[in-house]
Amino acid sequence: MENALNLDTVVLAEDRKHVVILDQTLLPNECKYLTLNKGEDIWEAIYSLRVRGAPAIGVAGGYGYYLLADQTDTEDMDAFVEACRKNMEYLNSARPTAVNLSWALNRMHGVLLAEKEGKTVAEMKQRLMKEADDIREEDIQISRNIGAYGYELLEKLGKGVGVMTHCNAGTLATAKYGTALAPIYIALEHGWDGKKDLHVYCDETRPLLQGARLSAYEMQAAGVDTYVQCDNMASYTMRAGKIGIIFVGCDRVAANGDFANKIGTSGVAILAKHYGIPFYCCAPSSTIDMTLSSGDEIVIEQRKAEEVTEMWYEKRMAPEGVGVVNPAFDVTDHSLVTGIITEKGIAYAPFQESFEKMGIRPVEKFVDKK
Amino acid sequence: MENALNLDTVVLAEDRKHVVILDQTLLPNECKYLTLNKGEDIWEAIYSLRVRGAPAIGVAGGYGYYLLADQTDTEDMDAFVEACRKNMEYLNSARPTAVNLSWALNRMHGVLLAEKEGKTVAEMKQRLMKEADDIREEDIQISRNIGAYGYELLEKLGKGVGVMTHCNAGTLATAKYGTALAPIYIALEHGWDGKKDLHVYCDETRPLLQGARLSAYEMQAAGVDTYVQCDNMASYTMRAGKIGIIFVGCDRVAANGDFANKIGTSGVAILAKHYGIPFYCCAPSSTIDMTLSSGDEIVIEQRKAEEVTEMWYEKRMAPEGVGVVNPAFDVTDHSLVTGIITEKGIAYAPFQESFEKMGIRPVEKFVDKK
Repeated sequence: MENALNLDTVVLAEDRKHVVILDQTLLPNECKYLTLNKGEDIWEAIYSLRVRGAPAIGVAGGYGYYLLADQTDTEDMDAFVEACRKNMEYLNSARPTAVNLSWALNRMHGVLLAEKEGKTVAEMKQRLMKEADDIREEDIQISRNIGAYGYELLEKLGKGVGVMTHCNAGTLATAKYGTALAPIYIALEHGWDGKKDLHVYCDETRPLLQGARLSAYEMQAAGVDTYVQCDNMASYTMRAGKIGIIFVGCDRVAANGDFANKIGTSGVAILAKHYGIPFYCCAPSSTIDMTLSSGDEIVIEQRKAEEVTEMWYEKRMAPEGVGVVNPAFDVTDHSLVTGIITEKGIAYAPFQESFEKMGIRPVEKFVDKK
Repeated sequence: MENALNLDTVVLAEDRKHVVILDQTLLPNECKYLTLNKGEDIWEAIYSLRVRGAPAIGVAGGYGYYLLADQTDTEDMDAFVEACRKNMEYLNSARPTAVNLSWALNRMHGVLLAEKEGKTVAEMKQRLMKEADDIREEDIQISRNIGAYGYELLEKLGKGVGVMTHCNAGTLATAKYGTALAPIYIALEHGWDGKKDLHVYCDETRPLLQGARLSAYEMQAAGVDTYVQCDNMASYTMRAGKIGIIFVGCDRVAANGDFANKIGTSGVAILAKHYGIPFYCCAPSSTIDMTLSSGDEIVIEQRKAEEVTEMWYEKRMAPEGVGVVNPAFDVTDHSLVTGIITEKGIAYAPFQESFEKMGIRPVEKFVDKK
C-alpha cells in the first residue's frame, strides 16, 4: 500500500495536454491512474466519482476547463470565450451540487473575461494553465491551514483521542492533506504516534463506501490505528465512549452555517449532539456560499437506484422494482454544528457573523453576459 | 415473487423427522428451503442467520430441541434428560443474545423436567413434539395481536401514513405476520390499499442487509408501496416529512424498557426523537426479560469483521488488516421509546410498571440442577 500523501489525486500530465486522475472507484483493491483529455471523459470521471471530494473536484474542474480551452481551435477571442462558456456549463452539469466545481469553473472563466483584452488566444491558454495550477497549489495550502486549526482541537483533547469521520474528506478528496482528515496528518507531522495517540473511526458511507474504501485506506497508509464501521454503528461507538471529536467535510455551506455533505452527515450530527460529542465541519472558504441564506436553498442531487440495490453492480440485493431513496447529500442544520473550520480560522455560531469577520463574502459569479 | 404470507419460515416436515427452514441469506434472489435434521446443521442455520428474527429463532430452537431429543437412542430417562440438557446448551450457543432461543429451549426442557415422572422416553418424545408445535402456533397468535395493537396507531395517524422500519421483523422473522410489520398486514386485512394508504421505508440494515433483502421483499410481495434506503438516509427521509411512525422489532427488552435490537436501532430512535416522530418497539412478551434491570446488562455479540469488509464475501471493500467494528446489536435507551407493543397491549413509560400491570413476570429458567 502506498502512503496516501504520495498519491496525487488530480494533476496535469507532464505533456500539459492531459489530466491524470487517480480512479478512486477502484480503491482499495487497485491503484489505477486515468490519463484523460476528452471533455466527455473528464465529465464522466467527475460524474462517476472517479475523482471526488469537493476540493479535488475543483482542481479537476480547473484542469478540465483549461484542457478544453487548449483544444479550442480558433484565434478569434470572441469565439474562444463562447466555446469556453459552453464547456464550463457542460463540465458543471456533472455535479451541480458541488460548489467547488462551479467555483473553479467561474474562477477560470473570470480570468479569461478579465484579462482577454490585448491578448492572443494562445497567450490566454498559457494564462489559464497557470490559473489551473494555482487552484491546485492554493488547495494544498488551504488544507494545511484547516489541518492546523483542527490540530489545535486535537491537542486540547489530548493524545489517545478517538476521531470519527464520515465519507472521505482526506488527501484523496483534495490535492493533499484533505479537510476533515487534515488535522490527523498535521498531528502526525507534530510527532503524534498514529498507532497509539490517534484512533480513527471511519463510517463506511453507503452506498458508495467512500469511508471504508478511501478514508480507511489513506488513514491506514498513514500509519494510524483505523477502524471501519457501518454507518448504523456510529451510535454504538459513540455510546461506548470511543469518540472524542467528529470531523466531516462538506460540499456547500450556507451563510447561516447549514451545510450539505455526503448523505448521512446530518444523522451523525444529531447523534453527536445527543451524546454531547463536539462536531466540526471542515470547509475551505470556497465552499461557503454566502448567497444562500440557509440549507433549504441547497438543491439535493438524487442518484441512480442501482447504487443502492445492486452491490457494486454485480449482485442484486433488493427485490426488482422496489422504490429506492438515494439522495447524494443531506443538509445538516447549523444548530447541530460545534464549529466550522476554514483555512482562515474556526467559525462559531452565529455563523454568518463569524464568516463575515473572517472576510468571507458572497462570491462574485463571472457569467458571460452576452 | 411469492406472497410473503404464504412463505413458511420454519416448520416441521411432514415426516416429523426434519425441520424445513427457508434460507433467508439467499433472498431476494432465490427462495430455497433447507431440510435439516443434524444438530450441527440446525446450529449453523441459526448462527449464519439462515433462520433469523427473534420469534422464528425460538420456533427453530423448539424444533431443534425436539429433533435432537427424538434422535437420542436410549430408554433410560436420566440419560435422555442429560442428553437433552447438553443439546440445549449446544443450540443456545448459536445466538447467545437472542432471548427467544434460550426461552424456547428452556420451555422445552421445562416440560421434560416437569412431566417425565411415570412416562417412557418414547412418550416424552411425543410430548416434546407437541410442545414445539405449540410454540409455533402461539407465535402466530402473538404476532396477530401485536399487529392489532399497532394497527390502532396507524388508524389514528390515518391512511397515507409513511412507516419506517429497521432490519426485518416481518413474517420472515416469525412464524407469520411478524412483529414490526404485523400492523401493516393487519391494515391490509382491514382493507387498506397497500399502493395508496401505506408507504413503507425499509432501512437496508448493514452489514447483512435484512431490510433491503427481506423487509422490502415481503412488503413488496404484500402489495405495499415500498422503498429501500441506506441506513444513513433515515435522517434525510425523516426531515423530508415522509415518516409518520417507526416500528422496529427487538431481541431482548430489559425491565426498564431499554432494549437490544439489530445494530443501528438506537440511532434510528435518536433521530426519531430529534424529529418528533413516534417510535415503537414491537416485542412479544417472551422477549421481555424482567430479570434484567437495564440494557447495560445485555451482552452484545460481536460478529466477524468480514461481514463488513467483504461484500457478501466476494469483493473486498476495505483495506486488508484494518480494524472493524461489528456489533450485532445495540441498546436503545428507554427514554427514546414512545411505546413497546406486546401481544398483551402497549406499554408506556414507566415501562416496568406497565409490564407488571400486563402480568409480565421474570421468566423462570428451568435448569437441570444435577
